[in-house]
Amino acid sequence: MGARRMMRLGMSMRGLGYHPAAWRHPEVPANGTVRFGHYLRNAQTAERGLFDMIFFADGIGIREHDQPRGALARSGYEIIEMEPMTLLPALAARTERIGLVSTASTTYNEPYHIARKFGTLDLISGGRAGWNIVTSWSEAEARNFNREEHLDYATRYERAAEFVEVVTGLWDSWEDGAFLYDKAGGIFYDESRMHVLDHKGKHFRVRGPLNVGEMPQGRPILVQAGASEPGREMAAASADVIYAAYDTLEAARAYYVDVKRRLAKYGRDWDDLKIMPALRPVVGRTMAEAQAKFDELQALLDPLVGLQRLYSTFGDLSGHDLDGPVPLDALGPQELRSLSDQWVRRVREEQLTIRQLYEEKAGGGGFHLVGTPAQIVDVMQHWLEQEACDGFNITPSILPGGCEDFVELITPELQRRGLFRTAYEGRTLRENLGLKPHVNRYTRERQEAACATA
Amino acid sequence: MGARRMMRLGMSMRGLGYHPAAWRHPEVPANGTVRFGHYLRNAQTAERGLFDMIFFADGIGIREHDQPRGALARSGYEIIEMEPMTLLPALAARTERIGLVSTASTTYNEPYHIARKFGTLDLISGGRAGWNIVTSWSEAEARNFNREEHLDYATRYERAAEFVEVVTGLWDSWEDGAFLYDKAGGIFYDESRMHVLDHKGKHFRVRGPLNVGEMPQGRPILVQAGASEPGREMAAASADVIYAAYDTLEAARAYYVDVKRRLAKYGRDWDDLKIMPALRPVVGRTMAEAQAKFDELQALLDPLVGLQRLYSTFGDLSGHDLDGPVPLDALGPQELRSLSDQWVRRVREEQLTIRQLYEEKAGGGGFHLVGTPAQIVDVMQHWLEQEACDGFNITPSILPGGCEDFVELITPELQRRGLFRTAYEGRTLRENLGLKPHVNRYTRERQEAACATA
Repeated sequence: MGARRMMRLGMSMRGLGYHPAAWRHPEVPANGTVRFGHYLRNAQTAERGLFDMIFFADGIGIREHDQPRGALARSGYEIIEMEPMTLLPALAARTERIGLVSTASTTYNEPYHIARKFGTLDLISGGRAGWNIVTSWSEAEARNFNREEHLDYATRYERAAEFVEVVTGLWDSWEDGAFLYDKAGGIFYDESRMHVLDHKGKHFRVRGPLNVGEMPQGRPILVQAGASEPGREMAAASADVIYAAYDTLEAARAYYVDVKRRLAKYGRDWDDLKIMPALRPVVGRTMAEAQAKFDELQALLDPLVGLQRLYSTFGDLSGHDLDGPVPLDALGPQELRSLSDQWVRRVREEQLTIRQLYEEKAGGGGFHLVGTPAQIVDVMQHWLEQEACDGFNITPSILPGGCEDFVELITPELQRRGLFRTAYEGRTLRENLGLKPHVNRYTRERQEAACATA
Repeated sequence: MGARRMMRLGMSMRGLGYHPAAWRHPEVPANGTVRFGHYLRNAQTAERGLFDMIFFADGIGIREHDQPRGALARSGYEIIEMEPMTLLPALAARTERIGLVSTASTTYNEPYHIARKFGTLDLISGGRAGWNIVTSWSEAEARNFNREEHLDYATRYERAAEFVEVVTGLWDSWEDGAFLYDKAGGIFYDESRMHVLDHKGKHFRVRGPLNVGEMPQGRPILVQAGASEPGREMAAASADVIYAAYDTLEAARAYYVDVKRRLAKYGRDWDDLKIMPALRPVVGRTMAEAQAKFDELQALLDPLVGLQRLYSTFGDLSGHDLDGPVPLDALGPQELRSLSDQWVRRVREEQLTIRQLYEEKAGGGGFHLVGTPAQIVDVMQHWLEQEACDGFNITPSILPGGCEDFVELITPELQRRGLFRTAYEGRTLRENLGLKPHVNRYTRERQEAACATA
């Protein structure tokens, strides 16, 4: 058992849960997204369950248009919530060991701010900060930041790559041993160990040095999605964790092997990057209990909210009979991505009604499992052993209930099988993830120079 | 005693204290600016002392040039520190009643981010957030944000005014009663009470609505410096608190009366704006003890660090005999502001040596008092009664010591004289400052419309 690969676990805890009817569930506090106690309870539960990290997605604006008309006011989803980089430090102050990961966009931020904020979070938390690097793709966000349209894909990714280069450069501003704190001699820092980045690129000119130093992790953990070809390459080059989204073992395994094989060319080992797909478990002590939990949520799914989740692929279906066929002639000229394609294919093959479609896509979309602890852990273990993942990012249907269910029912089963820790191994997120220490670039240069002359 | 005006108190707690030798003091943790425990101790001490608020200044970069050469590494001042808007939420989670005010620049931020972050801080803290509105004036900061030079004065202030207009507009996105949380009916919010700002101005185009709502204070407290003519007008129009800097009663009183008289034209009352100058007390149980504390710090003042504080007015004096006269012919072509003028005049009139000058300017500059609790409170009371201020922002010489000295020695004396609270009056910063509730602009319109038709 000792040599068995251990599972990595993240708890996604944005909002009130990942089922679109979550806010209407009787046990869910509908105003929880603006109550600190809601987030604190979830974070402390996840820490009790020894999760590697909690994880916050983010949007810089209310992303959804009100389509079909009236859906937005009924969705209760990503309407008002706390800004995660303001929330995480507060959670850091009331937790001890769990990692704290937040999304921050490279599209509408400045690298100096991001480097400072995540560096500060690393200090406050004693080395538990992680940055989920994303680009912003929605018009709703663009319009909150002086633009009518979002940046095109190529520009967004080019900007993101340079953004990460600047942030990681700033994080290395202070070489190991830079701070002398020599009160008697009056020397605060060693000038030869302070480094000015002086970045001059296409999107950014940033001088530095960063006015944050001595981060316990050397630098915060880098998280990416890395689904596209350039995304995979960027993740292989520098990410510590990938937040993936696959709902079949085959797709997840193909992705996993593809990305892991790219690591070597960057001088990185197979285990230097942890790949963690999203997983939404609905767990019960019996299958019947689990199914009842899921059915209860599905019954609370408002048809307009269901149709909202179909809109981007199928257009506005609010004028149609919900129990009639899905009108595929209404499909607009939107880019059909692979995910949308799958759904169109299923509608064609299975002749789904509109209601069946939204109940499946909105209520059950993504990798979701309904079952007993043993049934769910069977699948999780299989994915881990088949090298389809290094663990999972849990996206509970409802919060706090789904988080509590996991910790109470699934964590013990994982531990019983020797798949999951029974105590935190380290003090920092980097240590708990089993990642190598970060070595400051100038410290490495100095070491290499010392070796060359030795 | 009951009708006596109560004193307002803020605790400035950036860094290790406001004496330039603070970091070398034997009781000061030289690495405190990157240790959460340092800030937490100060914040909890200030709360124990019933301070209205703690206050963080900020710079987005290391502002000082290394002039004279070698001074920066010896200064220990604003080198590395925590980003205050990341730090304050962590302090919010470990305090109950004290207000939490941070500087955020209108020059290198976006209003949507700032509105979200301070709105979130207000939620986390249960209504204790305040925003100190500043513009960024240094080249060092400009160079961290894609510019070679800082923006000119007029553009900075024009941008700042529009920035505040957007932020306060976003904060009013959700009218009172907007959130219904009606689980049975499936209605999360009332569409008629969500408002899209759709700001289109010279510097910003921001649509909204803000994805934060239900702030306990209605909106965070607005703090400004407001020294210049346009600054005074802007503060009179919208600020709740002014952080002032005057070292004579006459100057403070002239300023106070001038700004307060401007309030009426904005439909505001005399007490709707609190004016709080900075004050650095060095307190001892006896005058000898206080003087010894101050002398100990002055003795730790490194000559290079002293000369650094003279640089902007007097140029690089490092080549001169420190005990010789101040060479006024070396004065560069910098804009001489009123403060610099005063020092040049004093040098001329009092024939100060270079060492005398930097010891006075660096060690004792600003409004600073050395004395017993009774002596210091005499002055504070006189300023309050003479309408030179509504209270003070304390800038302790060293941290945590200066903060603890205040709470232990000065607070009880203020309370004994009935000048300061003996328990927090309210739950929010707005309540504790004795300010009126914020009324959402759309709620007000609705009320006015209802009255007009009644």
